[in-house]
Amino acid sequence: MAKTQIKRGKQKWRNKPGELVYTGDISSEEVQVDVLLYSPETDEISFKKKIEEFKDYSGYRFIDVKGLNNKDEMQRIGAILGLDDLLLEDIMHMGERPRLELQKDYLFLIMKNLYLDKENIRIVQEQLSFVVKDRTIVIFRDSDSEVINYAKEKLKNSKHSLRRFGTDYALYYIMDLLVDNYFLIVSDVEEQIEQIEEAIISGEESMNLEEVYRIRKELLLLRASIWPLEDVIHGMIREEGLIENSTKEYLRDLKGNISQIMDYTSIYRESILGLFDIYLSNTSNKMNSIMQTLTVISIMFIPSTFLAGVYGMNFKEFPELGIKHAYPVFWIINIALMIFMYRYFKNKRWL
Amino acid sequence: MAKTQIKRGKQKWRNKPGELVYTGDISSEEVQVDVLLYSPETDEISFKKKIEEFKDYSGYRFIDVKGLNNKDEMQRIGAILGLDDLLLEDIMHMGERPRLELQKDYLFLIMKNLYLDKENIRIVQEQLSFVVKDRTIVIFRDSDSEVINYAKEKLKNSKHSLRRFGTDYALYYIMDLLVDNYFLIVSDVEEQIEQIEEAIISGEESMNLEEVYRIRKELLLLRASIWPLEDVIHGMIREEGLIENSTKEYLRDLKGNISQIMDYTSIYRESILGLFDIYLSNTSNKMNSIMQTLTVISIMFIPSTFLAGVYGMNFKEFPELGIKHAYPVFWIINIALMIFMYRYFKNKRWL
Amino acid sequence: MAKTQIKRGKQKWRNKPGELVYTGDISSEEVQVDVLLYSPETDEISFKKKIEEFKDYSGYRFIDVKGLNNKDEMQRIGAILGLDDLLLEDIMHMGERPRLELQKDYLFLIMKNLYLDKENIRIVQEQLSFVVKDRTIVIFRDSDSEVINYAKEKLKNSKHSLRRFGTDYALYYIMDLLVDNYFLIVSDVEEQIEQIEEAIISGEESMNLEEVYRIRKELLLLRASIWPLEDVIHGMIREEGLIENSTKEYLRDLKGNISQIMDYTSIYRESILGLFDIYLSNTSNKMNSIMQTLTVISIMFIPSTFLAGVYGMNFKEFPELGIKHAYPVFWIINIALMIFMYRYFKNKRWL
Amino acid sequence: MAKTQIKRGKQKWRNKPGELVYTGDISSEEVQVDVLLYSPETDEISFKKKIEEFKDYSGYRFIDVKGLNNKDEMQRIGAILGLDDLLLEDIMHMGERPRLELQKDYLFLIMKNLYLDKENIRIVQEQLSFVVKDRTIVIFRDSDSEVINYAKEKLKNSKHSLRRFGTDYALYYIMDLLVDNYFLIVSDVEEQIEQIEEAIISGEESMNLEEVYRIRKELLLLRASIWPLEDVIHGMIREEGLIENSTKEYLRDLKGNISQIMDYTSIYRESILGLFDIYLSNTSNKMNSIMQTLTVISIMFIPSTFLAGVYGMNFKEFPELGIKHAYPVFWIINIALMIFMYRYFKNKRWL
Amino acid sequence: MAKTQIKRGKQKWRNKPGELVYTGDISSEEVQVDVLLYSPETDEISFKKKIEEFKDYSGYRFIDVKGLNNKDEMQRIGAILGLDDLLLEDIMHMGERPRLELQKDYLFLIMKNLYLDKENIRIVQEQLSFVVKDRTIVIFRDSDSEVINYAKEKLKNSKHSLRRFGTDYALYYIMDLLVDNYFLIVSDVEEQIEQIEEAIISGEESMNLEEVYRIRKELLLLRASIWPLEDVIHGMIREEGLIENSTKEYLRDLKGNISQIMDYTSIYRESILGLFDIYLSNTSNKMNSIMQTLTVISIMFIPSTFLAGVYGMNFKEFPELGIKHAYPVFWIINIALMIFMYRYFKNKRWL
Ligand SMILES: [Mg+2]
Ligand SMILES: [Mg+2]
Ligand SMILES: [Mg+2]
Ligand SMILES: [Mg+2]
Ligand SMILES: [Mg+2]
Ligand SMILES: [Mg+2]
Ligand SMILES: [Mg+2]
Ligand SMILES: [Mg+2]
Ligand SMILES: [Mg+2]
Ligand SMILES: [Mg+2]
Ligand SMILES: [Mg+2]
Ligand SMILES: [Mg+2]
Ligand SMILES: [Mg+2]
Ligand SMILES: [Mg+2]
Ligand SMILES: [Mg+2]
Ligand SMILES: [Mg+2]
Ligand SMILES: [Mg+2]
Ligand SMILES: [Mg+2]
Ligand SMILES: [Mg+2]
Ligand SMILES: [Mg+2]
Ligand SMILES: [Mg+2]
Ligand SMILES: [Mg+2]
Ligand SMILES: [Mg+2]
Ligand SMILES: [Mg+2]
Ligand SMILES: [Mg+2]
Ligand SMILES: [Mg+2]
Ligand SMILES: [Mg+2]
Ligand SMILES: [Mg+2]
Ligand SMILES: [Mg+2]
Ligand SMILES: [Mg+2]
Ligand SMILES: [Mg+2]
Repeated sequence: MAKTQIKRGKQKWRNKPGELVYTGDISSEEVQVDVLLYSPETDEISFKKKIEEFKDYSGYRFIDVKGLNNKDEMQRIGAILGLDDLLLEDIMHMGERPRLELQKDYLFLIMKNLYLDKENIRIVQEQLSFVVKDRTIVIFRDSDSEVINYAKEKLKNSKHSLRRFGTDYALYYIMDLLVDNYFLIVSDVEEQIEQIEEAIISGEESMNLEEVYRIRKELLLLRASIWPLEDVIHGMIREEGLIENSTKEYLRDLKGNISQIMDYTSIYRESILGLFDIYLSNTSNKMNSIMQTLTVISIMFIPSTFLAGVYGMNFKEFPELGIKHAYPVFWIINIALMIFMYRYFKNKRWL
Repeated sequence: MAKTQIKRGKQKWRNKPGELVYTGDISSEEVQVDVLLYSPETDEISFKKKIEEFKDYSGYRFIDVKGLNNKDEMQRIGAILGLDDLLLEDIMHMGERPRLELQKDYLFLIMKNLYLDKENIRIVQEQLSFVVKDRTIVIFRDSDSEVINYAKEKLKNSKHSLRRFGTDYALYYIMDLLVDNYFLIVSDVEEQIEQIEEAIISGEESMNLEEVYRIRKELLLLRASIWPLEDVIHGMIREEGLIENSTKEYLRDLKGNISQIMDYTSIYRESILGLFDIYLSNTSNKMNSIMQTLTVISIMFIPSTFLAGVYGMNFKEFPELGIKHAYPVFWIINIALMIFMYRYFKNKRWL
Repeated sequence: MAKTQIKRGKQKWRNKPGELVYTGDISSEEVQVDVLLYSPETDEISFKKKIEEFKDYSGYRFIDVKGLNNKDEMQRIGAILGLDDLLLEDIMHMGERPRLELQKDYLFLIMKNLYLDKENIRIVQEQLSFVVKDRTIVIFRDSDSEVINYAKEKLKNSKHSLRRFGTDYALYYIMDLLVDNYFLIVSDVEEQIEQIEEAIISGEESMNLEEVYRIRKELLLLRASIWPLEDVIHGMIREEGLIENSTKEYLRDLKGNISQIMDYTSIYRESILGLFDIYLSNTSNKMNSIMQTLTVISIMFIPSTFLAGVYGMNFKEFPELGIKHAYPVFWIINIALMIFMYRYFKNKRWL
Repeated sequence: MAKTQIKRGKQKWRNKPGELVYTGDISSEEVQVDVLLYSPETDEISFKKKIEEFKDYSGYRFIDVKGLNNKDEMQRIGAILGLDDLLLEDIMHMGERPRLELQKDYLFLIMKNLYLDKENIRIVQEQLSFVVKDRTIVIFRDSDSEVINYAKEKLKNSKHSLRRFGTDYALYYIMDLLVDNYFLIVSDVEEQIEQIEEAIISGEESMNLEEVYRIRKELLLLRASIWPLEDVIHGMIREEGLIENSTKEYLRDLKGNISQIMDYTSIYRESILGLFDIYLSNTSNKMNSIMQTLTVISIMFIPSTFLAGVYGMNFKEFPELGIKHAYPVFWIINIALMIFMYRYFKNKRWL
Repeated sequence: MAKTQIKRGKQKWRNKPGELVYTGDISSEEVQVDVLLYSPETDEISFKKKIEEFKDYSGYRFIDVKGLNNKDEMQRIGAILGLDDLLLEDIMHMGERPRLELQKDYLFLIMKNLYLDKENIRIVQEQLSFVVKDRTIVIFRDSDSEVINYAKEKLKNSKHSLRRFGTDYALYYIMDLLVDNYFLIVSDVEEQIEQIEEAIISGEESMNLEEVYRIRKELLLLRASIWPLEDVIHGMIREEGLIENSTKEYLRDLKGNISQIMDYTSIYRESILGLFDIYLSNTSNKMNSIMQTLTVISIMFIPSTFLAGVYGMNFKEFPELGIKHAYPVFWIINIALMIFMYRYFKNKRWL
């Protein structure tokens, strides 16, 4: 069965605040770090595998940390990057809500990647954490992420806009990719609603209630992932120091996309409810018309069956039984009765 | 089948931000430019076909660009007008949400034209983009637009108000035409609701569920197109520099119209839901009364049929069968029974 | 059939902004002007019929313009009063939304008069426009208005509060009369809901669905007319220059009335929905109990009818038929069976 | 029948603003005034019956005016207290909405007392008006009020907190008593919902729809009375001059109570809707199961009744009739058929 | 039966404001005080049992008061801690709403602990009150609280963060534990919804309406407990003086958790309503299909039963009865009729 998960990850309870516990489902404790060093001034880019190596570079530093299930390594990375335990805790806790935290010298962002697992017909949710501080962006994720790989690929291209701007633009760029993914979910929902629409309005097919429920849950999940982003982007636009004005221009554009997705979720929700109303009416109308036709037919035989019973009675003194042509008259009366009733019901639009 | 499209245009994904991709459905790559140069001081107006020619004119410049499916030409036009790639991307992306962007030296506006395609009974949605910068208005559209043609026709009339005011007024003038079109949709919805109302309340006709669904979607589409305009106009009224105070007066008037359309969409939505409630009740009441009448009739024959069966039994010792006039008495008893039951049910209001 | 109109008046489209088109349904082009000149200092009041005559008077000027269907006359009046075309357009357009416009030297207000046309059981909507500028109030209306006539009558009374205060108070006074009319609609709705309540809860009468729908539309219309007034009065209270502080006191009182009507519309809407729920339950319960009783009765005869059929069979070898007193035993068995079933169903509360 | 009144009192229309009309239902024109003079400095309290006597006292003045149905007396009292006609009009109009008015030198408050008339099972609504101005509180009410009597009793006790603080505290004290009364309504609603809950979930009793409707109306009335108080208390806390800081502390506490009642009304409303959903499902499930069982039983007899009819036919050539033991075989076949059908339906869970 | 209590505790009415009345259900009047004195500078911690002993200590003071049902002792404690009667009243009143009060020199907080009583399948609600003033935190509770015991246990550990920070951090730490408990309720609701989901969508099991109602009430209770906390934390973050900046960082994190729980309650509510819609459709579809099949079967026998009755009639002149092979022909006709009807209904998808 298709399943849309709105899970919060493993339960975290009674940890000390700031205690590091990974709550995702990746069991491997391997941590893989990619450091990309680049600068708008030069066409070169260098690749490092040790996180310490970012320190000496005076250009922009793009750090990709894959694998969060290793408390000691996370603490070591945190120490090198200057991140406190409360932050690391949220990075390792897979059930966080999308949110932005602005500090004096860095910015911390949690976002969700949503994509459609076509095989299992369910939405998969991935948590990504970002830290942006002076000339550096660090991305934390617990597994392979198509979106981050794509961004790294683009960064390798010396002509790409990613190479012209700073790490704030890199953050925007990934956010934009994530929101593009939301649009794919929107597209999928739209397609499914159109299919349901055609099925319902043509009246040929019945409504797949399970599918409808799944779409409603997809919309809820989409909404829960998208609506905190309005505050996030608002916060980034007001931020002074870490986000360049040129990047804010892009963020304003992204804000429009987010509003649009919010609009779509409302519209699709209303559409589904509207289709459900039609489906219920259709079902009830169809059922009613069947029951009605059947009942009318059964009614048409009731008087005749009674009459046949009457002439089957064994009274000694029963004059009609001896009347000539009584039997064909019985048929004529009954057929006339049925025709009359048929016409009467037809007239009253019960047939 | 009638169809109201809430489509977002072709899917745009994994483009570089600012990459120009046309997402509409016009395949021709022809770009047609109309430049109208006019000034309140003189009665003259001159028409040019090359976009470069607007530069030398010191009066007002009205530039109409039709056809967006040519990336190179768009880039050339953008360069001449001084528009950056992010703006051109939105202009070429047909699935934008209505919105206003205020920059230091220009204003960018996206709006939707909605009109009713009477033949296919569906709402057609057209995206229009506007750039207003010093003494210049540029309109971008991907196909023929009745509204823009109408405005250009009026501009040719030297006595028209468009000739007395600047390009900010021209923008308002077109916005007003677009909002007028929304009112036509409102009118259409109103008419349809009245027809449904008459059909439902007279009880003569059944509800066309498909039509109801279509109206609900029209209202959703109208709402999605109209409600971002409240922010748009609010932004234009607060703007300083590009919009004249006299034009702001007109915009305030337009804002009233928009609030009114919002009110109507709410009222019509509530009315449809109210009518749907009545329809469901009517259907159920009608069905119930049919079933009830029929069941009562069948009940009236049950005891009599049983009695006829009784007197059809073949017991050797069966005193009643030999009684004189037993047969007519049987009829009298049965007819009395039926009359009694008829009256009883009539009394209990089951008939 | 009763009908509540939520009409927007004739369609206005593709007029030049500021073009004067009357969109009401009064065909006469007569314009009737009443000028009342009065001053708190003196007990005198003078009546003029020409609008020009207000200019020379140094006291308060109350100008009543009846008839809007004459473009030339409206333009002449506008010129004399110093009103621009955009204002005149709104005055002549009968489908405006209630709203306030504050200008440097005048105030413009549109309000709706609602009253109940008892004969046709429908709400009638009248649009009134007001301009208040230095010592002058001008009222525009397209037909005879009971409210304005009443106010003029009061103004003739030298002891009336209208004579003690300025034109801002006169405006408040008329607004108060209009809001009083809204209360009459509220009263009417309340009465009707109480009647429905009694009918539904007593269970004696069925719900008049058409009436319920009409009340719901009345509430929608009332709400649409009343809720923009919160902004209107808020605007008037903040206004500086045209509205005296003493009048603002009255306006604050009026604001309370408007909040109260808003409260009532919510409460009545909820009440109707609640009654509708009960009605649906009642209908369904009543129907169910009928069907249940009838089915139980028919079940009670099924085994007996079968048994009668059995003893009507013509098997050669049929021992029971010859048994002594078999026939009365048949009756005893059947009556016992029926009593048992009756008790069983009674016990199970199916009867 | 139980009845919850949401009445607005007698209709007030076309009165001059500020014209005094009593709209309650007390016909007696007697006005009874109690003046209590007290001071925190002394233990003494003096009681007067004439309103003029408050003037000479330099301590706190608690004035209780009972009876509003005497225009002349009200005007006399108003003149002595320095209240304008607009205020007196609201005091005498029994359909006011709870609200606060802050003037330069006095505070005017309207509140509703709600209590449960256990005998007639309905909520009774009482309007109380308060004026607080320098060292004086005046209470206006049209009939005997338990709450005011209680407060006066307490005031007589020289040890009571009312004697330690000023008239602002006295106002708070009465407001608190009124809000306590709202909690009694909440308690009553809670108890009734619990009873309905038990009845519904046990499935033993049917839902009393009338009672549910009454509770819903009680909640609406409670909500309408309570929610304007949030603004009222907010206004009193911001007020400077009439309300002491120590009293504001108490008011903040009262605000918490009001928020709590708002919360309860939401929760109870949702609970009732949830119970109604269960009730509808239960009703429908019960009905369905009855109909199903009955239909299955009737189906079980249909083939047998047909067969009995077959062997009751009078064909001359009818071999089965002569077969030996045909009659007992008929019974065996029928009983087997019925057992089979019973098992089949049991298997399919239709029984 | 499972039961979720939204009780307000015993009714409090007509107490003097500030009068101390315990409204919980603990009858014992014992008050047990634990004073923990600790300081970040030293590793030591001392335990006292008398509340007076906190005064002399210059480090942090953690005071746990268990048992509120002793007015005199409460007044003594209040006097020692410098708490006024209004505060003590709220502490002893078990039906308070979660809220924060900020005073010049102290902070007062009421929160609810919610936990699941697995045995009785109901949510238990516990009220906790906190006072934080210079270097001191006081916790009031009427019974044993797992959360407070847990926090005290942690405090004894000299390496725990509680020992590094002040009493503001201790307050945050307990708030965090309480919110963790809310997440356990969320988890429980989630699990139950998943079970219902599987049962409903597989169609195997019927919906447990009582359980659904219980979940809806759990969500209401959760919502009522959690949503006032948004204001509480907002207030604490703005507070200046009592809450350290480092603690505010933690509070911001907690705010995110609260928003998340709010999101979950919305999502779960919508999910339940969606599942309920499916359940209703399923029930209705299943019922309809049973009724339909049964009715079709009974229809199939109606004509045959009539025909058998016809050939059981006793007319003297009845030619068919003598026809050769009339009886087997009767069977052939009837079987053919039944096959035809079966195919017809099959074709029309009624079977
Ligand atoms: Mg957008
Ligand atoms: Mg939006
Ligand atoms: Mg939007
Ligand atoms: Mg929408
Ligand atoms: Mg809907
Ligand atoms: Mg957009
Ligand atoms: Mg308007
Ligand atoms: Mg308007
Ligand atoms: Mg509006
Ligand atoms: Mg509205
Ligand atoms: Mg509405
Ligand atoms: Mg509705
Ligand atoms: Mg009021
Ligand atoms: Mg009011
Ligand atoms: Mg209100
Ligand atoms: Mg309200
Ligand atoms: Mg309400
Ligand atoms: Mg409702
Ligand atoms: Mg409702
Ligand atoms: Mg509280
Ligand atoms: Mg409270
Ligand atoms: Mg609240
Ligand atoms: Mg609360
Ligand atoms: Mg709630
Ligand atoms: Mg609900
Ligand atoms: Mg969060
Ligand atoms: Mg969170
Ligand atoms: Mg939230
Ligand atoms: Mg949410
Ligand atoms: Mg939601
Ligand atoms: Mg829903």
